[in-house]
Amino acid sequence: MDNWRQRLYAIIFHTDTPAGQRFDNWLLLVILASLVVVMLDSVDAYHQQYAGLFDGLEWAFTLMFAIEYGLRLYCSPKPLRYAFSFFGLVDLLAVMPAILALIFADAQYLMIVRVVRMIRIFRVLKLRQYLSQANFLLTALRGSRQKVTVFLVSVSTLVTVFGALMYVIEGPVNGFTSIPTSIYWAVVTLTTVGYGDITPQTPAGQMLSTLVMITGYSIIAVPTGIFTAELASAIRGGEHLKHACPNCQKAEHEQTAAFCNRCGQALYPQQPPRD
Amino acid sequence: MDNWRQRLYAIIFHTDTPAGQRFDNWLLLVILASLVVVMLDSVDAYHQQYAGLFDGLEWAFTLMFAIEYGLRLYCSPKPLRYAFSFFGLVDLLAVMPAILALIFADAQYLMIVRVVRMIRIFRVLKLRQYLSQANFLLTALRGSRQKVTVFLVSVSTLVTVFGALMYVIEGPVNGFTSIPTSIYWAVVTLTTVGYGDITPQTPAGQMLSTLVMITGYSIIAVPTGIFTAELASAIRGGEHLKHACPNCQKAEHEQTAAFCNRCGQALYPQQPPRD
Amino acid sequence: MDNWRQRLYAIIFHTDTPAGQRFDNWLLLVILASLVVVMLDSVDAYHQQYAGLFDGLEWAFTLMFAIEYGLRLYCSPKPLRYAFSFFGLVDLLAVMPAILALIFADAQYLMIVRVVRMIRIFRVLKLRQYLSQANFLLTALRGSRQKVTVFLVSVSTLVTVFGALMYVIEGPVNGFTSIPTSIYWAVVTLTTVGYGDITPQTPAGQMLSTLVMITGYSIIAVPTGIFTAELASAIRGGEHLKHACPNCQKAEHEQTAAFCNRCGQALYPQQPPRD
Amino acid sequence: MDNWRQRLYAIIFHTDTPAGQRFDNWLLLVILASLVVVMLDSVDAYHQQYAGLFDGLEWAFTLMFAIEYGLRLYCSPKPLRYAFSFFGLVDLLAVMPAILALIFADAQYLMIVRVVRMIRIFRVLKLRQYLSQANFLLTALRGSRQKVTVFLVSVSTLVTVFGALMYVIEGPVNGFTSIPTSIYWAVVTLTTVGYGDITPQTPAGQMLSTLVMITGYSIIAVPTGIFTAELASAIRGGEHLKHACPNCQKAEHEQTAAFCNRCGQALYPQQPPRD
Repeated sequence: MDNWRQRLYAIIFHTDTPAGQRFDNWLLLVILASLVVVMLDSVDAYHQQYAGLFDGLEWAFTLMFAIEYGLRLYCSPKPLRYAFSFFGLVDLLAVMPAILALIFADAQYLMIVRVVRMIRIFRVLKLRQYLSQANFLLTALRGSRQKVTVFLVSVSTLVTVFGALMYVIEGPVNGFTSIPTSIYWAVVTLTTVGYGDITPQTPAGQMLSTLVMITGYSIIAVPTGIFTAELASAIRGGEHLKHACPNCQKAEHEQTAAFCNRCGQALYPQQPPRD
Repeated sequence: MDNWRQRLYAIIFHTDTPAGQRFDNWLLLVILASLVVVMLDSVDAYHQQYAGLFDGLEWAFTLMFAIEYGLRLYCSPKPLRYAFSFFGLVDLLAVMPAILALIFADAQYLMIVRVVRMIRIFRVLKLRQYLSQANFLLTALRGSRQKVTVFLVSVSTLVTVFGALMYVIEGPVNGFTSIPTSIYWAVVTLTTVGYGDITPQTPAGQMLSTLVMITGYSIIAVPTGIFTAELASAIRGGEHLKHACPNCQKAEHEQTAAFCNRCGQALYPQQPPRD
Repeated sequence: MDNWRQRLYAIIFHTDTPAGQRFDNWLLLVILASLVVVMLDSVDAYHQQYAGLFDGLEWAFTLMFAIEYGLRLYCSPKPLRYAFSFFGLVDLLAVMPAILALIFADAQYLMIVRVVRMIRIFRVLKLRQYLSQANFLLTALRGSRQKVTVFLVSVSTLVTVFGALMYVIEGPVNGFTSIPTSIYWAVVTLTTVGYGDITPQTPAGQMLSTLVMITGYSIIAVPTGIFTAELASAIRGGEHLKHACPNCQKAEHEQTAAFCNRCGQALYPQQPPRD
Repeated sequence: MDNWRQRLYAIIFHTDTPAGQRFDNWLLLVILASLVVVMLDSVDAYHQQYAGLFDGLEWAFTLMFAIEYGLRLYCSPKPLRYAFSFFGLVDLLAVMPAILALIFADAQYLMIVRVVRMIRIFRVLKLRQYLSQANFLLTALRGSRQKVTVFLVSVSTLVTVFGALMYVIEGPVNGFTSIPTSIYWAVVTLTTVGYGDITPQTPAGQMLSTLVMITGYSIIAVPTGIFTAELASAIRGGEHLKHACPNCQKAEHEQTAAFCNRCGQALYPQQPPRD
């Protein structure tokens, strides 16, 4: 019995056996299918025609995910650790909305959070490589966190001031019905999205808008610059051997270096045999 | 008495005592609350229901900020220097609009400038780190000031010429009612905001628009490139090798230097093997 | 006869003879002309007036391309290899739509795929240089493929979740008629395109939109950062120092190396002063 | 008399005398004033009220520019060279439109090309510094010319194919009235401008749009990456001394280097005195 449980564990949690890989492939397909059903169900034309079919399918998918969740809990050597891991919570979330939908009418669309389960796709692709790439991105993001905070606080201050000014200049008559709405307009403009649902009508407003746009166009450079600089240094960092030269302390060397290329010192001098 | 004034100074101006930190936290909360009140008051539905309440709260906040401003003036060792410092002026601005609002009806919305006081948030977070990051950004911005001026003058020339051309091509019938409006359109297009409140209708106008868009899409690269290059060099700037030349004591060298480039001395002579 | 075939081959397939260059120039002109005819034919006003003329021209162009395709097959030393090469398939595609148009009415507009043939323009310009530049770009793109996959999967997940949330918040009344439509809106917003055909109407929706826009504005930095870092390293990649170590003959070193990092030999021993 | 002509030349063409600087300042002011008049004249409300005044001012400005152009021709040592230089042609263009306006009604708005004269502003600011910065930008742009050509040809191909596909999918009923219009839509979408004057209505069209937007969002990285990489290398290039080390051929050194920091060789060995 325990043997069977271990084999199940290998199939469900790992991808290095053929059976495990097949399981993951099928799982991804089922997740994708359940997403398509939720999406189609939200289209009015399809909903009216196939409401029953969609309902049945959704319950079937929910049942499958519930069984899968149960099996994962059952065969995992440390069920609690799994249950509170990231993937464990996501797997639970994939089942919850259907049950909530029995109580709240709209909850069924929350099934779309199942899309988060699609992250498993990285496991089916060559996992290692993608994880190391994601690592580069995360290192760069972490390195730029503080700079980004400074940037976001500045942007928030800017849109609030710009929004309030436009509310005073244009006023409710021209669509700027309140300060929050004006701030929404400032964000739409500064990020260069530009819906056009609220636009300046007066010359003074258009002049201020011009200022906001040029500002937005210029400071789009800031996050890019921050991230590029950090990413470049993260990539450089990963390409090099970190080992201080015993003579001159040069910290980074080519992966294959045997001697320091700044001072000619052997990087790994052999210890003379003790007498 | 003077002792009490010094303690007050430590609480209000510094964040390194628990009381000082608590004071700053509460101050931020009050500023945030006053901002929320100004914003909600601008929403018509809320204004009609709670006008009295909002008015009262705004006066309460103004009173609090006035008292705070008075205390800062009173306990500061150099009141005049504080009054004309950046933060001193911002603190004064936080009180003024409410008083101006007694005379001008719209002035009350200028209370939103209180958002600038939110910059104090950096003092509550780990100040030092953020300031050093902001320093990097400022160094990069200062280094790119001239390049940005060249860029902005070029862009201004472009939008004026494009705007005038569109005014001649499309004319008032298609929404391009004057040259300033056409320049506004050119800015909206070049910055890729694209409201769509004014759009070209004639084939010739659409062709020129295409040119403007491609131009804008391409030159968005320029500020990004400028800023990234400056930021990278600002980050690299702090990376000079600190190692005094054993012969002439030159203290800073390029990261990769093997010989002193002032006197030609090997920087890291290898130790002769001990006998 | 075979000699004639070889000369034809040199003219049609190569650009290093005057005749070959003239042939390529004319070919580009004819392709361009055929594109213009397809475009003009799609404009209703012109179509009604010149339908017959356009039809005639299109058949003439198709005939010319068919003859060219036949000649290429005839004079190529390895006709099959040509037929299944990239350019061979593109050349076939340039002829197919006209024939398909006899059966399907709309197929004629597929003639626009002839634009792909315009890539031949690089052959007329100084080919070599452009290809080496394109190589840099391709190396950078290939190097960033995995990072871009991670990025695209993250973006897809984001827009699906944001779209579903907006569908629940705003609902069909405000234009978010289904989850796919809401995802379309999320893409329009996140990429900062911002058509404005669907816009949030409720305060909650506007708040979520603000979040989506700021997200989009920030993560626009990611592909730029990835690509810039890769391009910079692709450019640097060709910059290794070519100088054989006088001791061990290792041929490539870091630009700044003073000593061989395989054997510790000084790479540039100074000449002893002549007596 | 000739002395007077030389002094006039110094005033009009140079900025290093107080009189020359004052002349340039006034000239900029007059150009700016003439631009403002052209702009205001295009606003209907002002035109109807002040048509006579504007007409008078424009003739006065034109007269002033004509006199200035005459003086420049008169006092320049090489009048023909000036007349066909960049600034000479721009100065002529500043006078022409008013004369053309006697014949063509709309030509008067071409006076806006006077904005190009504003480039003289760089001469009033500290010229040298700005020119060297502009040089950096130009070097970077020139270095990336070929990569940008490859990029623009690819983008043109993309928008043509996408435009034709959308024309087939959506058709004239949904606003895609012809292939050129559809290409215009593709440019509007790919550059993330997004006017919203033409938007996809069918699910298939929205799906293709999504593809176009993601493409545009991703390839915005390409020109930025190209330009950043080139600019960074242009900046690095300008910071370094170009002088190959006589021993190891290292090409770039710090501005103050006396010895090569890779091999310790004196960069400028003194010639031994000949006997």
